[in-house]
Amino acid sequence: MADAKALKRTRFTDVFNTIRDEVLEYVKAQNVPADALEWFHRSLDYNVPGGKLNRGLSVVDSVEILKGRALTDEEYFKSAVLGWCVELLQAFFLVSDDLMDSSITRRDQPCWYRTEGVNLISVNDAFMLEAAIYYLLKKHFRQEPAYVNLLELFLETTFQTEIGQLMDLITAPEDHVDLNKFSLEKHRLIVVYKTAFYSFYLPVALAMYYCDIPHTHPTLPTVDPYKLASSILIPLGEYFQIQDDFLDFSGTPEQIGKIGTDIVDNKCSWVINTALSLASPAQRAILDENYGRKNPEAEKRVKEVFYAVDVPGKYYKYEEDAYKRINGLIESIPVEGLGAEGQVKLQREVFTSFLNKIYKRQK
Amino acid sequence: MADAKALKRTRFTDVFNTIRDEVLEYVKAQNVPADALEWFHRSLDYNVPGGKLNRGLSVVDSVEILKGRALTDEEYFKSAVLGWCVELLQAFFLVSDDLMDSSITRRDQPCWYRTEGVNLISVNDAFMLEAAIYYLLKKHFRQEPAYVNLLELFLETTFQTEIGQLMDLITAPEDHVDLNKFSLEKHRLIVVYKTAFYSFYLPVALAMYYCDIPHTHPTLPTVDPYKLASSILIPLGEYFQIQDDFLDFSGTPEQIGKIGTDIVDNKCSWVINTALSLASPAQRAILDENYGRKNPEAEKRVKEVFYAVDVPGKYYKYEEDAYKRINGLIESIPVEGLGAEGQVKLQREVFTSFLNKIYKRQK
Repeated sequence: MADAKALKRTRFTDVFNTIRDEVLEYVKAQNVPADALEWFHRSLDYNVPGGKLNRGLSVVDSVEILKGRALTDEEYFKSAVLGWCVELLQAFFLVSDDLMDSSITRRDQPCWYRTEGVNLISVNDAFMLEAAIYYLLKKHFRQEPAYVNLLELFLETTFQTEIGQLMDLITAPEDHVDLNKFSLEKHRLIVVYKTAFYSFYLPVALAMYYCDIPHTHPTLPTVDPYKLASSILIPLGEYFQIQDDFLDFSGTPEQIGKIGTDIVDNKCSWVINTALSLASPAQRAILDENYGRKNPEAEKRVKEVFYAVDVPGKYYKYEEDAYKRINGLIESIPVEGLGAEGQVKLQREVFTSFLNKIYKRQK
Repeated sequence: MADAKALKRTRFTDVFNTIRDEVLEYVKAQNVPADALEWFHRSLDYNVPGGKLNRGLSVVDSVEILKGRALTDEEYFKSAVLGWCVELLQAFFLVSDDLMDSSITRRDQPCWYRTEGVNLISVNDAFMLEAAIYYLLKKHFRQEPAYVNLLELFLETTFQTEIGQLMDLITAPEDHVDLNKFSLEKHRLIVVYKTAFYSFYLPVALAMYYCDIPHTHPTLPTVDPYKLASSILIPLGEYFQIQDDFLDFSGTPEQIGKIGTDIVDNKCSWVINTALSLASPAQRAILDENYGRKNPEAEKRVKEVFYAVDVPGKYYKYEEDAYKRINGLIESIPVEGLGAEGQVKLQREVFTSFLNKIYKRQK
C-alpha cells in the first residue's frame, strides 16, 4: 500500500520535471540571462513539488474514476499536467501568503521569501508561478474543446481565492485583535473562498472538463453536473478546513508535524469562532484579552476557555454531522446517464474517495 | 485642443466608473462582507484611474484608426473596456513594483502600500486588480470570436512583463551595486520585456483583435500583421523608455514633475549603461564607487562622469537615429489589402500617432 502510494507520487513527480523544463525552455528562448533563468528554476523547484500533492493527484484520480478504466499514457500525462497546474496555483498562493503573514517555515523548510536574497522579489516569483499555468494550458490544451473552460476555471478560481484572502487579511490582521469581527458565518465564507474552491472544486471540475462532461445533464434538464459537484465539494472543503483548524488546536506536534500557532497568530479559526459562540461574558473577556497575543501565558488562558466551553465535544459532533450530511449529498447524485451518450458518469466515487481520505484524519 | 483632450479623458473615465461598478457588483454578489467590498473599491479607485492613461486611450485611438471612422457607442465602450483592462494590468504591476522597490510616491500621492493599514496586503490587492481584467473580458467579450486571443494576449504579456521585472530585480537590486551586471544589451532586454510589450504592443494588438484582423495577410503569405506591428512597436517602446531614462537624469523637476532618482536607486538605466560603454578606467572607478549610493555627493560625482563622456550628446544622436529608423519601419508597411476583404488596414497612422506623441517629448 505504502509502495503503491510512493510509486504514484514518483510517476506524478516525473511529469513535474517535464513541465518545469518546458516552462524554462520557453523563458530561455526569450534570451533571458542565465542568472534570471536559474532564479526561476530555483523558485519552481523550491515552491512547487514539495507538498503533499493531494490537490494535484486528485485531478488524476478523478479522471481515472470518471473514465472508469486505467488511463493511456497520454491521458495520464495530460491529467497530470492539469494536476501540476493546480499545484502551481497553490504555490503562487503560498509564496505570497507566507510573505503577507510573515510565516517562518513551510513544508519543513524556510519560507521562500526568507531564503538568501529573495525577500520582496518573492512577489514577482509568485506571479511567475501563476503565469506558468497559462503557458502550460496553452501548450497542452489549446487544441482541445475544453480549452476556454479550463482557462476560465483557473482564472475564476484564482479571483475567488484572492477574495477569500482579502476577507481573511482584514478580518484577522496579525497585529490588531478585534474579536467582534469574527463569526462562524464569516469563518465559513473565508474558508469557502480561500480554500474550498481551489482545493476541492477546482481539481474535480478540471477532471470533468478534461473528460468533456457538458454543463447540461442529458436527462435531467435542471441539473448542471458542475453545480452538482460544487454543491458537494464546497461543504467537503469546509469540513476539511474545520478539521485543519481543530488539529492546529488539539493535535500534538508528533501528530500534525508542526506546532499550532492559530491562537497566537489571531487566526479567524473555527475553534475561536465556536468558543465565541458559547462563551459567557467572563470567558469572552478572557478571550478578548488573550487571543492573538505573542505570549505563552495568554495562549494557555485561551486554551483553558476552549476546554471550558468544550470545543472538542462540539468538534466531534460537527464531524459526525458533516460526514453524514456529505454522504447524504453524495447518495442523492443521479448516477446514471451523465455526460455524452451516458459514457461518462459523474460517479459517486469521485466524492467518496475525497471524503474517505478526510474523515477522522489525525494529521 | 486642450479641451478636446480633457473631453476625451472624461469620456474614457466614465467607462471606468461603469466597469468598476460591474466588478464590485460581482464581488458583492458573493456575499462578501461590507468591509472587504469597501477595501477593494478603495483599491480600484486609488490605483487604476489616476495616471496619464496613455496606454488605455491608445486602444481606443487604434481601433478608431483601424476602422477609419468614428466609433459607434458600443464600439467605443468595448474598446474602452479593453483600454481599462490595460490600465488594470498596469495598476497590478505598479502596486507590486512600488512595494518591491520601496517607492515613496506614485502619481503625486503616497504609494498604495504606504497608505493606512495596507502594507503587505497590497500584494493581494495587486492580484485582485489583475483578476478584474479576466472578469471584464469574460463579461464583455465571451461571445466574440477574438475572446481566446484576447485572453492569451493578456496572459502572455503578463508573463513577459514579469520576466522583465525578474531580470531587472536581480540585475539592479537596490541594496547591492555591481555594475559588472549592467550592459546596454541587458538594458534593452529588460526594457523590451518589462515595458515595451505591455505598453506598446498590447494596446495595438488588442485593437487589432477587436477589429478581427487575422494573423495571415491576404496577399502577402509571409506577413503576419501582428508580427509586423510588434516589429515596429517594440523598438518604439525601447525608444520611449530610453527617453524616460534620459529625462530622469537631465530633466528638471518642473519639467518632469518629479526628482530623478535613478542614480541613487542603482537603476539599470540607459544613461549608466551608455556611460559605462564610454568610460575610461579612471571614470569607471568613479562610477563603481559612487553609483547607487544614497548620498548627494556620490550622485554629483556620477553626474560629472555622465557629462564628461557626453551622455547628452549620445542621447540626441540616439534620438535622431531612433526616429529615422522607426519612421523607416513604418514606411515599409504594406498599407493596402490587410484584413478581411481589404476593409481593415493596418494603417501607418496607428504607429505614426504613437511616434509623434513621443518624439522630442520633454516630460
